[in-house]
Formats: sequence, structure tokens, C-alpha cells
Amino acid sequence: MPEYKAPIRDIKFVMQEFLDCDTHYQSLGYNDASEDMVDAIIAEAAKFTEQVIAPLNQIGDEQGCTWTDGVVTTPDGFKDAYKQYVEGGWPTLSQSVEFGGQGLPHSLNAAISEMMSGANHSFAMYPGLSHGALATVEAHGTDEQKQQFMPKLVEGTWTGTMCLTEPHCGTDLGMLRTKSELNDDGSYAISGTKIFISAGEHDLSDNIIHIVIARLPGAPEGSKGISLFIVPKFNVTKDGSIADRNAVSCGSIEHKMGINANATCVINFDNAKGYLIGEVNRGLHCMFTFMNSARLGVAMEGSAAAEASFQGSLAYAKDRLQMRSISGVKNPSGPADAIIVHPDVRRMLLTQKSIAEGGRALIGYLSQLVDITHAEKDADIRAAADNKLALLTPIAKAFLSELGFECTSHGVQIFGGHGFIKEWGMEQLMRDTKISCLYEGTTGIQALDLLARKVLGSKGQILQPFMTDIATFCKDNADTPSMSNYVKDLASYSEQWQSITSTVGKKAMKNPDEIGGASVDYLMFAGYVTLGYFWAKMASVAQSKLADSGEDKAFYEAKIKTATFYFQRILPRAQGHAACIEGGVDSMMALDSEDFSF
Amino acid sequence: MPEYKAPIRDIKFVMQEFLDCDTHYQSLGYNDASEDMVDAIIAEAAKFTEQVIAPLNQIGDEQGCTWTDGVVTTPDGFKDAYKQYVEGGWPTLSQSVEFGGQGLPHSLNAAISEMMSGANHSFAMYPGLSHGALATVEAHGTDEQKQQFMPKLVEGTWTGTMCLTEPHCGTDLGMLRTKSELNDDGSYAISGTKIFISAGEHDLSDNIIHIVIARLPGAPEGSKGISLFIVPKFNVTKDGSIADRNAVSCGSIEHKMGINANATCVINFDNAKGYLIGEVNRGLHCMFTFMNSARLGVAMEGSAAAEASFQGSLAYAKDRLQMRSISGVKNPSGPADAIIVHPDVRRMLLTQKSIAEGGRALIGYLSQLVDITHAEKDADIRAAADNKLALLTPIAKAFLSELGFECTSHGVQIFGGHGFIKEWGMEQLMRDTKISCLYEGTTGIQALDLLARKVLGSKGQILQPFMTDIATFCKDNADTPSMSNYVKDLASYSEQWQSITSTVGKKAMKNPDEIGGASVDYLMFAGYVTLGYFWAKMASVAQSKLADSGEDKAFYEAKIKTATFYFQRILPRAQGHAACIEGGVDSMMALDSEDFSF
Repeated sequence: MPEYKAPIRDIKFVMQEFLDCDTHYQSLGYNDASEDMVDAIIAEAAKFTEQVIAPLNQIGDEQGCTWTDGVVTTPDGFKDAYKQYVEGGWPTLSQSVEFGGQGLPHSLNAAISEMMSGANHSFAMYPGLSHGALATVEAHGTDEQKQQFMPKLVEGTWTGTMCLTEPHCGTDLGMLRTKSELNDDGSYAISGTKIFISAGEHDLSDNIIHIVIARLPGAPEGSKGISLFIVPKFNVTKDGSIADRNAVSCGSIEHKMGINANATCVINFDNAKGYLIGEVNRGLHCMFTFMNSARLGVAMEGSAAAEASFQGSLAYAKDRLQMRSISGVKNPSGPADAIIVHPDVRRMLLTQKSIAEGGRALIGYLSQLVDITHAEKDADIRAAADNKLALLTPIAKAFLSELGFECTSHGVQIFGGHGFIKEWGMEQLMRDTKISCLYEGTTGIQALDLLARKVLGSKGQILQPFMTDIATFCKDNADTPSMSNYVKDLASYSEQWQSITSTVGKKAMKNPDEIGGASVDYLMFAGYVTLGYFWAKMASVAQSKLADSGEDKAFYEAKIKTATFYFQRILPRAQGHAACIEGGVDSMMALDSEDFSF
Repeated sequence: MPEYKAPIRDIKFVMQEFLDCDTHYQSLGYNDASEDMVDAIIAEAAKFTEQVIAPLNQIGDEQGCTWTDGVVTTPDGFKDAYKQYVEGGWPTLSQSVEFGGQGLPHSLNAAISEMMSGANHSFAMYPGLSHGALATVEAHGTDEQKQQFMPKLVEGTWTGTMCLTEPHCGTDLGMLRTKSELNDDGSYAISGTKIFISAGEHDLSDNIIHIVIARLPGAPEGSKGISLFIVPKFNVTKDGSIADRNAVSCGSIEHKMGINANATCVINFDNAKGYLIGEVNRGLHCMFTFMNSARLGVAMEGSAAAEASFQGSLAYAKDRLQMRSISGVKNPSGPADAIIVHPDVRRMLLTQKSIAEGGRALIGYLSQLVDITHAEKDADIRAAADNKLALLTPIAKAFLSELGFECTSHGVQIFGGHGFIKEWGMEQLMRDTKISCLYEGTTGIQALDLLARKVLGSKGQILQPFMTDIATFCKDNADTPSMSNYVKDLASYSEQWQSITSTVGKKAMKNPDEIGGASVDYLMFAGYVTLGYFWAKMASVAQSKLADSGEDKAFYEAKIKTATFYFQRILPRAQGHAACIEGGVDSMMALDSEDFSF
């Protein structure tokens, strides 16, 4: 099992040097988030994730959760670790002071979430899932509902879920069948079965607050007839105390490819008591408010997995002796050279490194945009941040989960046959990370969201501000010789991005299926270019730091070399996607569905 | 769990229509392999794999093998199925008549192996592994050894293994430590520990014949001091009967990502009695003779997995209703359209289909080359076949295992969240197939074998006959309008292949690390083009069949449409690899190994 080491140096590089979080926090009024405070919190979180969460990762996979008569038991150590998590005040970090939170910025919490997820994907999901429930109650609940449910959710002694999926519908929630009927006391009776409910039932918290979508009698068909309800596992009195058990039960848990330590539940509602939240029939709309943040969380899982797999791979590649370097013996006193001398092993390691660090920068940036949407006073700035998030969230979610998964696969390859053996922990990272390509909308769904809904849906308008960012960066660095290679490539790729967009847009006017035919390749192309932009920016910051002082020379030089690797060996993959998009959709639609197999 | 259906129609297309196996078999003197006989054997094998082997796939994964005090028990049903496999005479199919085999061609056996592997990867490995041991004894054993060991191995009542890997060495076998010392009776005492021994211990056969590499006292260091030994689990009398237990024991079995029903064993030799096979210190050389055939077997696992995943995906995509087609409602009477209407789902399905069928054609062709190396009388033709195998085997092994794995991942994506759940069987295919990218030499090792050893090692000579094949095909079809798009692309890609080869070759003269820097992208480029050639050839055959008669119109049209999909949407990926190769190796080698992380 690779030992997880929180990448503090690089997290601080991203937050403080690359994104200047100090200025950012001050400008948004996050006065408590001083540099010292940020340093202290990150150091403390690193210790917690390394010492408490990470050691439970492998045992969690081995034991998994167990279900007995509706009761779910988490693996050994999870309950105690979660208790420590609550006692440490971690759930409260970026929550409203009004309900017991510390009111610190979202982006600081995001950095901690990365460490949690890198250390133990399954564990990190328990608090991660509470967030959606919390945010829903805060944004759409009545004052009474907030007083009833929020303090314990903020504290972490209660956790939350989002209950959307049903056996026959996941992506297409308009088809949902769960019913809700008005009770005499103003509450609702909820009946139906939800599946794939992460953390739907477990032994970590005193209560579980389910946010459930359901249909009221006579509601319009499809997604316009969906309402949102708070349905607690234990009923809650007006003052927020736990009362009797509600008619909510866990019918079973799924046996899965990975994230075995996180309970994926079938939840049955049998005339369970629920409380309407937000407006009738506007439930899906309320949910979409938080979709971006959930998707960013999944994007982060991708780069966290790349980091975790990289750490394991690097240690092994330095230790494992096998064959000699083709360019001459590097370890003459040993029976063979360490495999890190072999270029193809380095290709895999640097792919992991460039995705972990590039992803961290992208997510750091997006998390600051989330801060802005929460705390910025100027509505135009808020709207611009929202728009940028709308464009970049599906890219980050799908691209980083796919590349994160690829990186975990490289981790297995670097270990050779040992990578396939559970004991080494590399294959678990692969199994755990595959879910990130699926939940909160598959890669295919993200790609449609990006191309159909966002880019073409806005007639390309949503793309422009980001293209302007890239153009501005290129212009600003045009005369810096050490930046010229990055700038040249970036300018050319962003032009190509725009030209692909307009070509697909035109083709789609004749045949709308061209959108679905191009979408995933389009998203991947966009992902490679987006990360290229962040790598070029990081190279520029590293160059300035090197020029400014001699401190941390090796770190900044490594950053620049990794940027160059990304531009030389990763970014060019975009050409394959561009070439595939050119192939169009006709060959995909030519076959009658009955003629796929014989 | 997807139901496995042997793809008989397509297997027959490849063998009989595409590769004209009838003429091929007659020319090699395989007179028993008439068209009727081939048909009958394939039909029988299809029934056996569908009805006996496939139903054990999921239970095999769930139960896995168990180890108790050195005894390994296979999952429920395996023992009985293996008994049926032996009783059906399947192990004897392509073995020498002299030792009880049926003397049928290797390529016929390969077609059956594909069905076995598609139905149950773990089960298929048990007989698969015997093959290496059998072939080794037949090629290098003394007459006495052959009489002692072969009949039972051919019959299948004994199985075999290849014991190469040790804890500290896999790729780099020159480092091996297992010792052998001459006994007074002319046998050898073998001592050491071997790991990753597939089918090293199990309850399916009466005896297990290990082929073990070990070092004699005073042998030269490295790979030139390796000798080969036959080490049976139970000693064998001169007449081939089982005697006392040898000092061979299974220390444990591995807990793995997949292929759980195949026992991956630690095998301890504790002064075990062994018999030298072949010449002293020439053991690795003997082994290499069979490397190609083992690697072809793994290539086949890749396309078999693509087929199995495709079958599950297709059934689900036709059944699962979710969202409406963007180009208009396709299922007005239902609540949503089947997901097969969505272009991106079709992209994944057609990727699976084009890899399964393209891979089948490539492997069918390579298997015929193996027939030629066994049975052709003309030494020049044999040598040409050997050379073609040398070039195409690493391509087939790495490319098809990687793409096969990708296809199983598409299978999971097509199922959405359900793909991640064990019950549906899609994630098992993914876990099982990952091993194919690792064993018998990782993708990285295949790529070095291809580029360093084969292509550049022969100064490009080994590439020329295949390039001539492609050029000839292009010339022959230049005037056929319906072939023009394929021919144009193919000609241009094969030119690019040669130009990349010469560019990398030149760069490597200055810096040998350029080879490892390019190798995997080079292999993937080669793989896409190679499969393109086979798809173009299949399209041509399908066009002729359509012109000849109206029979099976939908089948041949589907074949042509899939070829077009491959050329439009899969082959262009090669451009991404070409662009990455252009990036060179410098950015990979720039970072000191101590500066990868901070």
C-alpha cells in the first residue's frame, strides 16, 4: 500500500503563489483566512489525512461495508476516524457562522478535500455527500427548516444525502416515480425506492438527512413536475432534537468495483414523513444550483487519485531494480538500474505528475470562482464567475476523472504484475477512481452539457471570456523568450478550439446528432488545452520566482520542466481528438440498431 | 451478468471468407480440417463455451480460488467443467497425433480459445497455460521426456505451467536466483521461489508439470546462464505413471484485481527433483521460441474481452430507456428512447465492435502464420511468416490488450452507475482484462520489443514486407471507387509510419533514450494502422460478397459500415500518437529522479 503524503508544498504553491489566495480572500472579506491561518489549517489537515484517514484506505477496501437487517456497518476504524473528524471541527470549516460554521472560504475547504480524497476516497465521500444536503437546506429551506437541520449538519454529527436516482432512471430524472402526498399536518408522505444513494445508511452519524426528489399528485410530467423534500432518518422536533424513527429504510447495499468502504444504498421510503423544500415542481432547478459544486468535487477526486497513484509509483520506480538504462548503466554497484531511468516509466510518472499538479491548479482556480459566487458583492463579477464555472466545470469533471483514471492505470503498469495484486494498493486506486467517470453525470453527459447546453446553447458566448483569458495571457507573455514555446502552442490550440466549435456548430444545424458525435472528443480536446493554459501560467509563475530569489530552485525548475513535458507529450494528444471530430457522426448513425450484431 | 453468445457468424467470416482457411489448410496438408469439420468444431465449441464455461464466469469471480495448507481449490463448477473439457477432447485439438492429439491446425484452436476467453477469462487460462509447457517439452525434450510427459498433457489430465518470475525479477530474468544442482541419478535438485505462477496449483488435474528456469552452479551471470527444467508436482515413472509427491509446494495465492478464479501462485521448490530440458544455459532462448504464441494468446484475450463487453453493452443499450434522441423521438410509445439512439453511446458500441472484429481478423491472420511456421515445407515461406509474426506479435499483444481494456471500460460507461455494480458483470470484464496489459510483458515491454529490438534492430528491414503488403493492397484497390477512401487513408498512414520510423531511428543515433521515449506511442500508432489495414481488407471482401450474391446482405453491409466507422473515428487517433512522438524524449529525461516530488 503506498503511503499517502499530503502534497503540502504544491498545494501552497497553487493557493498562495499561483492563485494569490491572500489577496483573493481579503478582497472577498474572508479576513480570518490569513496566510498564517491557511498554513496552519493545511498543516493540520495534512497530519489528519496522513495519520488518521490514509491508514484506513486499504482495510476499508478489504472489509467493505456490511448490511444486516437494514443496519449498515462501516469498516473497522471508520467510526472512530469520523468522530475525530467531527471533533477536529473539519465539517464546520467553510460553513456559515450563523449555524456553527467557521465561515472560511470554500477554496480552502477544497484543498483539504483533495487531501482527504487522495488519502481515502471512500472516507472522503461521507462528509462530501453532506455538503449537497446542507447547501440545499441553506439555499432553499425556510428559517425553521434551517434551525431544525443545519446546526447538526454543520457540526457533522448528522450527515446528509441526495436521493435522486431510481432503478429505471438516472440521467433522465424526469421519469422518476417516487410519490409525495400532503399530510394533514402540512408534512408530506414520501413513497418510493431510490438507488445508488452514497452514504445513504451507515453508523458514523446520529441522524441522516435525505434530500429527496419526488412527484406530487397531478404534477406535470417530466422534469417540470419534480419537487424537493427533506426526509430525515429519525424525525426531528422543532428544536432540532431527534425523535422517533421515520419510515426510511436501507433495503440493501451494492457490491461494487470500488469505493467499497462507502455504502451505496437502496433506500426505501414507505410513507416516510418529509418536508417540502423550495417551491413545488421546482425541485430539479434547486438541485442544479449545486450540481457544479458536486461535479467540481468529483473533478478533484480525479486529480487526487493521480497524485496518490503518482506517489506510489514514484516510490516504486526509484526502488525497483530491473534492466539497464539504454543510454548507459546508471547504478553500476547494483544488479540493475532503478526503473525510473527508463524513458517510458518516466513518461507514465510525468503524466501522473502533470495531471495531479495541473488538475490541482485548475481546481484551485475554480474553487476561487466558487468563493466569488458566494462572497463577491459585485453582481457582474459574480455572474462572470458563474459563467466561467458553467464552462469549465464539465470539462474539469470529465477530463480530470478520465485522466485521473488513466493515471491510476499507469500506476498499475509501473508496478508491472505487482500492480495487479491487491496488497500493493495500486489497483484499488484504479477501482476507486472509475466511479468518478460515472457519478454526478458520466463523461458522456458532461460532454453533452459542455457542447450542447453550454457552448452551442450560448452560441459560443460562454466560451469567449475564457478564450480572451488565454489570448490575454499569450499577449502578455509574447515578448518573454522563455515563454515563447508555450505561448505559440497555446495560441494555436485555442484558435483550433474555436474553429472546431464553429465547424461542429455549423454541421449541427444540418444534423443535430453531430453534437453527440463530437461531444466527448470535443470535451477531451478542451480539457487538454485548458490544462495547457494552467501549465503555461504555472511555468510563468515559477520563472518569476526563480528570477526573484534563489529559494526552492529545484521545486520551481521541476515545475517548469513538468510544464514542458505537458506541452511536448500530453497536449499533442489533442490532435487525435481533433482528427476524430473531423470524422463526423455519419459513420456512427449508419448502422441500424438491429444490425450491430449477428 | 451479460450472457455470452459465441460470435459464430463472424468467426466464420474471418476464417472462411476473409482468410480462406480451406485453401490455407489444404496447402499445409491439414486434410482433416475440411470446411465441414471446421463448421462442426466451431458449433460444438460455441455450445460448450456458452453452456458450460460462460455460466461459471461470475461465480468464479465471486468465490475466487482458495488456498488451505498448500492445497488450492477452484470455484464451484470449475472441476466439473474442466472434466467435460477433457472428455470432449478439446485439449487434444491441435496437438501432435503421435502423442494422442488430433493434429488439427493451430488457427482452428485459436478460434476456440477466443470463445473460451470471451466466456470466462479465468477458466480459459488453465488449458492456455498448459500449452507453453507442452510446446516446450515437444520442441526441446528428449524422446524419453516426451513419452513420459506429453500424452497426459495432450490429454489434459495433467496441466502445465511456466515458472519464470521471482519476487525481485520479472522483465529482467537475468537476475533470477533459483538454483539447480546435479543429483547422482542425473536429475537436478531445484531450489527457489517463483511468483505469479498462473495455474501453479489447483484441483483440476492429476498432475502439474512445471517448466522452471533456474541457474546451474557456475553458470554465466545474466540471461546467458539460465537453464530450463521439467519439475513435476508428482514425480513420474519412466512409463508416465504418477509416483510420489515432489518437493514442490504452493506457498500462497495472490489476491488480485481480477481473474480471481485462476490461481496465481507462489511456488516453492525445495530441492525438488527436476530434469534438464534443452541445452545447459540456453533456457531463455528455448523460452523465447514460445513467447510469440503466448503473446498472441494475450492479444486474443483483448479482442475477446472487447467482444464480451460489446455483447453486454449492446443488449443494455437496446433495452435501457433514457432521454430522447436529439434528432427526434425514436420510441414515441415509450417514456424515453433506448440509449442506442444517442451518438456517443453508438461511438462506444462501435469502438467495441470494431476492436472485437478487427482484432479477430488480425489474430486470425497471425494464427495462420503460426500454422505456416509449423506445417509449411518451404523454409523461405516459413521464415517470412516468422518475420511477420515477429513484427506483428508485440503490436497485437499490446494494442489489443490496451484497446480491449478500453472497450471493457466503455462497457461500464454505457451501463452508467450500473456498470460499477458487480451484479451486472461489466466491471468484472474490466478487472479481468487489465491483466492482459501486464502479463507476458507489459505494454511498455512490447513497445520496446517492437521498436528497439525488431524495427530498429533490423534497421527497418522487418517492417518492409508488411509495408509492401499494405502498398500492394492499396495498388490492387486503387481503381475501385468504393475502396478509394480506405486506400487513400491507408497509403498515407503507412507512409507516415515509415517516416516516423526513420525520424525516430535518426534521433536514436544521437540519443538512444529517444527509443524508449517514442516506443509506446509508436506501438499504438502502428496498432491503429495495422487494424486499419485489416478493416480495409475486410471491407473489400464484404463488398465482393455483396456483389456476388444477395445473401447475408445486412451482415456484409454492417461490416462495411463498421470499417468506415473505424477509418472515420478510430484510425485518426493515430495522429495524437504521432504528435506525441514528435515531442521527443528530452522533456522526459530533464528531471532528476530526486526532483519528481517535494
